[in-house]
Amino acid sequence: MRLGEVGEFNFIDSIARLAGCPAAPVLVGIGDDAAVLDVGSAQKLVVTTDAMVQGVHFRRDWLAPHQIGWRAMAACLSDIAAMGAQPTAVFASVALPADLDSEYALDIVRGLADCARRFDTTLAGGDCTVSPALIFIDTVAIGTSPCPWLRSQARPGDVLMVTGSLGDAAAAVALLSSGRRPDDIPPPLLERFAQPLPRLREASILSARGLVSAALDISDGLVQDAGHMATQSGVAIRLESAAVPISDICRAAAAELGHDPLSWALAGGEDFELLLAVPAHRVAEAQQLLFDHCGTSLTPVGAVASGCGVTVLDADGQQLALDRSGWDHFSSPNKQ
Amino acid sequence: MRLGEVGEFNFIDSIARLAGCPAAPVLVGIGDDAAVLDVGSAQKLVVTTDAMVQGVHFRRDWLAPHQIGWRAMAACLSDIAAMGAQPTAVFASVALPADLDSEYALDIVRGLADCARRFDTTLAGGDCTVSPALIFIDTVAIGTSPCPWLRSQARPGDVLMVTGSLGDAAAAVALLSSGRRPDDIPPPLLERFAQPLPRLREASILSARGLVSAALDISDGLVQDAGHMATQSGVAIRLESAAVPISDICRAAAAELGHDPLSWALAGGEDFELLLAVPAHRVAEAQQLLFDHCGTSLTPVGAVASGCGVTVLDADGQQLALDRSGWDHFSSPNKQ
Repeated sequence: MRLGEVGEFNFIDSIARLAGCPAAPVLVGIGDDAAVLDVGSAQKLVVTTDAMVQGVHFRRDWLAPHQIGWRAMAACLSDIAAMGAQPTAVFASVALPADLDSEYALDIVRGLADCARRFDTTLAGGDCTVSPALIFIDTVAIGTSPCPWLRSQARPGDVLMVTGSLGDAAAAVALLSSGRRPDDIPPPLLERFAQPLPRLREASILSARGLVSAALDISDGLVQDAGHMATQSGVAIRLESAAVPISDICRAAAAELGHDPLSWALAGGEDFELLLAVPAHRVAEAQQLLFDHCGTSLTPVGAVASGCGVTVLDADGQQLALDRSGWDHFSSPNKQ
Repeated sequence: MRLGEVGEFNFIDSIARLAGCPAAPVLVGIGDDAAVLDVGSAQKLVVTTDAMVQGVHFRRDWLAPHQIGWRAMAACLSDIAAMGAQPTAVFASVALPADLDSEYALDIVRGLADCARRFDTTLAGGDCTVSPALIFIDTVAIGTSPCPWLRSQARPGDVLMVTGSLGDAAAAVALLSSGRRPDDIPPPLLERFAQPLPRLREASILSARGLVSAALDISDGLVQDAGHMATQSGVAIRLESAAVPISDICRAAAAELGHDPLSWALAGGEDFELLLAVPAHRVAEAQQLLFDHCGTSLTPVGAVASGCGVTVLDADGQQLALDRSGWDHFSSPNKQ
């Protein structure tokens, strides 16, 4: 059977079985946004890697080289935010065609290093090698937290919340796919795809107050990522689609393309917003804190209950039928 | 200018400049076998990544999928050995074509996980994604050591030593390049290329006794890697080519192909042996320890002196002219 028929998540399950149960010093292994290691200090170590491939995650005519590097690093740092951790150091392995212009290649590295610097961390190493054809970038981030957030700790009664707004990155990709050039797209929308800002500051503030039961970053789409949280926490999640925050620029792009912005908000990944399960009695406190310290909205989009699976309700409380619930890297069409 | 004209090592220098000076918690950044981080425990953290690309580092008709995975992980663990550290956890990002047979893909992962297990560590995470064409594997290893070895600490008076023997991996590659099928190559020789064993146990023993001033693993070729040590330590290195340990199977392969085995031993990389600078008065102790505990030979191949650069002498003490001193990933011909 081909990998594309097996699907990304079944393949990851097989990898987890092959790797075996995590044992000390590995506290959390394959299956969360990052692994958690105990290295004998008060802080737990959080480690994540993120691979980005030309023609799958980016196209050279859609992103400038600095944006390619920035986005690769941001994706990795977003996983650190999803663990409620702060980055200690970052690394990048790049495989680049030998005939690539060296200034173009350095701009990719500038993007990697600038994104790291923007979030108060350092590009401390990596590897570089030649690629016969495509650009490959694997970013690695190491972070620390005294008590990392996991996907598996959502509890019945928690409120499901998202930072910022959803669907912007998917809207930008849809405009690019429709033939719009990057410089014909409103910069605030393009930047959500091309230069995302991981929610590290938000994670720091919420983590310090112990306001979060479970978390992940929305990289595969809200519905699919909520499904990961439901499965790993052993709970049911109900999403209220009418409550999902959608920006005006996303709605404008949808109107232009005759598209329903809700499908981008529910199924489009790569906004790198956080999906958080917050105990109901601490929702207002979490919202106030994020607004005061970061100006970031924190919107309730659903609830955690006993049971299993994800249900998406429309404004009338009817269950919504979804034709595609998110992103599977092996079976989804490429961006190229 | 194209990347191939700039060269790997100049490009890495540019990356190091872009990344800036390492600052706490990064103690050692770009330029050694691994970065060194201080995360507040008695042990320093050592972090390395290693990218391996189909057609550059391996060919599918030369290596079985399990060997592809093993070799990728071994390369990364060898960097941990080169720091005198022991692995805490390992990670792997893989980009695989969607039409790849899923059992083939799982065999790559089995190779990654089995190599980790063989060296008492765990595959704790990573990423997997689709690749439009080639197989790309980036391995990450995190290790610990109270006092990591660096490339930059070789001192005049140290003796330069290598573990095991050099040239076997290059001999295996030369036989494969000449058209020999993998199963027509003597298994002990093929395994040096296909299933290398990083010198982690040797590193553990030498590190515990404080017997090493400076170290790296020989991945670019003895002469070139000695050059890295000379540059970073600010010393001169003299290599005695007649002393370089070459195995009988390497010599037999050379005789068959009409090749000089010394050129493989001096310029062929990927044996993943350790190059160590050892204080002269501790050489015998280091040799005895490694032989007693691991059955591994430790051979003096040169000396460290004041000055700069690498000189290679033949058996008569004459300086040897080398046509190619090692491996540069951007300007060397691909293995494909």
